[in-house]
This record gives sequence, structure tokens and C-alpha cells, in this order.
Amino acid sequence: MSDLLQALDAVIAERRGSGDPGSSYVAGLCYKGLDAILKKIAEESGETIMAAKDAQHGGDPTAVVKETADLWFHCLVMLSSLGLGSEQVMAELERRFGLSGIAEKSARGDRNPSTQGV
Amino acid sequence: MSDLLQALDAVIAERRGSGDPGSSYVAGLCYKGLDAILKKIAEESGETIMAAKDAQHGGDPTAVVKETADLWFHCLVMLSSLGLGSEQVMAELERRFGLSGIAEKSARGDRNPSTQGV
Amino acid sequence: MSDLLQALDAVIAERRGSGDPGSSYVAGLCYKGLDAILKKIAEESGETIMAAKDAQHGGDPTAVVKETADLWFHCLVMLSSLGLGSEQVMAELERRFGLSGIAEKSARGDRNPSTQGV
Amino acid sequence: MSDLLQALDAVIAERRGSGDPGSSYVAGLCYKGLDAILKKIAEESGETIMAAKDAQHGGDPTAVVKETADLWFHCLVMLSSLGLGSEQVMAELERRFGLSGIAEKSARGDRNPSTQGV
Repeated sequence: MSDLLQALDAVIAERRGSGDPGSSYVAGLCYKGLDAILKKIAEESGETIMAAKDAQHGGDPTAVVKETADLWFHCLVMLSSLGLGSEQVMAELERRFGLSGIAEKSARGDRNPSTQGV
Repeated sequence: MSDLLQALDAVIAERRGSGDPGSSYVAGLCYKGLDAILKKIAEESGETIMAAKDAQHGGDPTAVVKETADLWFHCLVMLSSLGLGSEQVMAELERRFGLSGIAEKSARGDRNPSTQGV
Repeated sequence: MSDLLQALDAVIAERRGSGDPGSSYVAGLCYKGLDAILKKIAEESGETIMAAKDAQHGGDPTAVVKETADLWFHCLVMLSSLGLGSEQVMAELERRFGLSGIAEKSARGDRNPSTQGV
Repeated sequence: MSDLLQALDAVIAERRGSGDPGSSYVAGLCYKGLDAILKKIAEESGETIMAAKDAQHGGDPTAVVKETADLWFHCLVMLSSLGLGSEQVMAELERRFGLSGIAEKSARGDRNPSTQGV
């Protein structure tokens, strides 16, 4: 699972850089510009909320997983188009939750006390 | 970076399970219920879009990173409250982009052809 | 201006009732179901926010008017598909702001004191 | 019902112009700036979608009316803070749907043919 977000960043960067809007979904979306990407984020966050409401009312929870994946994917495309990447988002979460160096220790067994108040 | 999302899942599960809404932000939010969490997702996706527009107009791109982190974090809280986790979202992205076993190979150098059309 | 929202309600009801998804945009959207309508509301609220940010950064304010019109129109379609209408939204706003019978008095000159705290 | 939106515009303009953020909800919100207003639009559109999903699953449809009223009200506050008003949104809808002069004729009985394709 580890480097998946970075692998996605690389795939997106490659597609964006192709220069041919017809070559892939990402290339076409980025060719349309940032507003088209942000419109997708608005739409996918709406669909995530709708899938969660369906799950709350007894619907299939896997739809929530798919919509969240769509939402996060379009966030990665947005980050890429602004010269940013998932690494910075992960670093922000790591910093905020005091989970620095989490790979080396058990998340449960050795939780950093600085995350207590979150 | 690797296990950060899973570490966050664990932190959220622990806070949710505390049974004391006053003990942490996550505990309080989950006590209010799914609708309160989804309201935060709506709000944070709006703030992500706003930060991206500011960056487009010359503003600070790091604000986009912070808002995306907020959005993803609240998605993790939503997943947790529905009995789901980041692992399933990552598995969905992995499956969709043909990046299975990405950790063992270079994302750029050995890209799976099945991701060509995305 | 007066009965425009009710006229729109009537137009939407007529299009919805046509039974032919190919006959109009509204008929096609309603044929797809409530989720398709809600997805448009998510998208149009995102576009309204984006247009407002552009206006804040010196862009054309008339884009905000167009996006707000899109958003409100899709809200009317949603209301219609749930057996509701603009009249109920207006009645709620009227009740909430103490503007009952506003047509008979000047909005500025004879404001109902019950709206003071809003 | 007729002039309610314009009456709301006037109420909002008055509250905005008070210069005292503590005097009313609108004054306080506008004092925080456009981003705070847009954040509310994101939140209220999310809540409208959630209420509609609840109604779809058998919940109370009047919650949809209340959330739509909240959404439209915050749109009016946004328009006001950008020097715009509901009149321009109504004019855009009127133009788009060929409902010009709707007050003088029956919405159903004398519908303008130019709205056929919408």
C-alpha cells in the first residue's frame, strides 16, 4: 500500500505532461484547466456525501469507498496541476497528528502523546 | 510516509471508541453523528476549492495542502464511522489504476499498461 | 418579477410530467432520478463559489449571477421531484425574517422588528 | 410573496451596512468576509443534499425546504457582498426561460414557446 499515493502522483504527472488532451482522462481534464478539476471535486464530494447517506439508510457501504476514491483522485489531480503532491498532504497530516516516524513504531502501541487533543 | 493513513485510522478508531465526547475533537464529532461529519466534508471541500482558486490567483499554495489535509481527514472519520477505512480506498485506487504491487517496482519505470487509458 | 419562481415551478412540473426523457433538459434530468439532480446541486454550488472567488480577485461579477441562477434552478428541480415547490421556501424565508405581508409595505421603511437579530 | 427576495436584499444590505459585527448574524458574517460566506454556501448545499437524501429514504420533506431556504439566504448574502442582488438572478432566470412579463400572463396557459427546449 505504501507508495501508492506517490505512484498515483507519478501517473498523473505523466498523463498531464503528455501534451495530448485526447490521450487520457487526466490529460483531457487538465487541458480544460483548474476550474474543470475543481468542478469535479465539488461533484465528487457531493457524491461521497450521497453515498454515505445511502449507507446510513441501509445501502451498500462499498459505494462510499468508490466515491471517496474518486474524490481523493481528483484532489491529487488538483494538487498536481498546482505543482503540489500527496507527499505534502501526508506531511501535513503527519505533523498535525504527531505521527512522525510512524512507520518505525506501532500506531497503537506507541502513540505520540501530542495527538491526544485532536 | 507508508503507514500514515492506517495510523490515522487507528487514532480515529481509538478516539471514536473513547465514549467521551469531550475527550477529543474526533470523539465530539462522532458523538454528533454521521450528518455532522458529512457537513464537515461539504465545508472542507468548499474550502479546498476556495484555496485552489486563491492559489490560481497568485495566493499561497500551502493553504491548498492544509485544506486538502482537512478534507481527507474528515473522509477518514466518515469511513471509520461507517465501519470502513483508508485501506479500502487505497485498494480501490490501486485496482483502478493497475498499480498493484507498486511498492516492489518503480512507479515510473515499470508502469502497468492497464493504466494507460485513465 | 413577482411570480417568476412559481412560473418556473410550473414549467418544471410540465417538463417532468412529459414522460419523455428526450423532450427537454429537465425531463432528462428527472428521468435519471434524484441523485442526478443532487449531483448537479453539488456541482453548481461549487461553480457559484468559484465564480465568487474569481469576482473577489477582480473577475466578472456577472458570472456569479449566472452560477447562482443555475444553482437555484436545480434546487427548484429538486423541490419539484420531491413534491415541493418554491412557494414553501419563500414561506420559510418570510416566516424566518418576519417579512409577512411584505408586498403591502416598504421593506426599508416599515421593517418588522422581529427581524432585528438575524 | 412577490417582493420577498427584494425585501430580503434590503434587510441584508441594512445589516451589512450597520458597521457593527455584533449587531446581527448577517453583520457578523459579512465582517468575516466573503470566504466565510462561501464556506456557509458549501455547508448549506451539503445540508440540502443530505436532507433530500433523507426525504428520498422516507424522512421529513420539510427539512429540505428549511435547508434550501438556508442555502438561498446565504446566496443572497454573497450577492450583496459582491454588489449584486436577487433581481439580477431573477432576470437571468427570466431571460433563460423566456418567461419575460410572466406577471401579466398565466404561467401555464400562455407559456412562451422559447422555453420548450430547456
